[in-house]
Amino acid sequence: MLHLVVYDISDDGSRARLAKLLEKFGLQRVQYSAFRGELNPNDREVLARQVGKFVRDDRDCIFIIPLCQRCSSTAIVISNTGVELVKEKGVEFV
Amino acid sequence: MLHLVVYDISDDGSRARLAKLLEKFGLQRVQYSAFRGELNPNDREVLARQVGKFVRDDRDCIFIIPLCQRCSSTAIVISNTGVELVKEKGVEFV
Repeated sequence: MLHLVVYDISDDGSRARLAKLLEKFGLQRVQYSAFRGELNPNDREVLARQVGKFVRDDRDCIFIIPLCQRCSSTAIVISNTGVELVKEKGVEFV
Repeated sequence: MLHLVVYDISDDGSRARLAKLLEKFGLQRVQYSAFRGELNPNDREVLARQVGKFVRDDRDCIFIIPLCQRCSSTAIVISNTGVELVKEKGVEFV
């Protein structure tokens, strides 16, 4: 299933290591602090356990969000860089 | 439908005005740069048009993400502040 991983991590080093880990799970960066890609339920659980170490202060947060066909096709992403949440033209850019 | 709005906005003033606007749409803040709440399809479109002005540089990005029952119940949020994506215990904290 498609997943969106969005995070707010204040420490630069932790943020870089998190990005590397997400790439290892086969996710693609779509924005400064957002990755997208396919995860099965087991991957999701394993990933969730491994990213916990990057959350340190109260502002830090990581969302691992599954997006079914319906949710991903109605998601809206607003950016100047033309982020694509799903390959086929299902996401509106406003 | 439940929605998660997550954003990365570099300008402090824009970020504060965006948060105010999200509150006006009845969304509740769940994290430093994340809000959650019910939006109907029309609200989603109106909101998407109104938040575009806060996206200025290439790093800025706003995700307006619908979460059906299935997606919201398997979403994972990792934070120190015990963010609740859905009221009932459907979200795992790791």
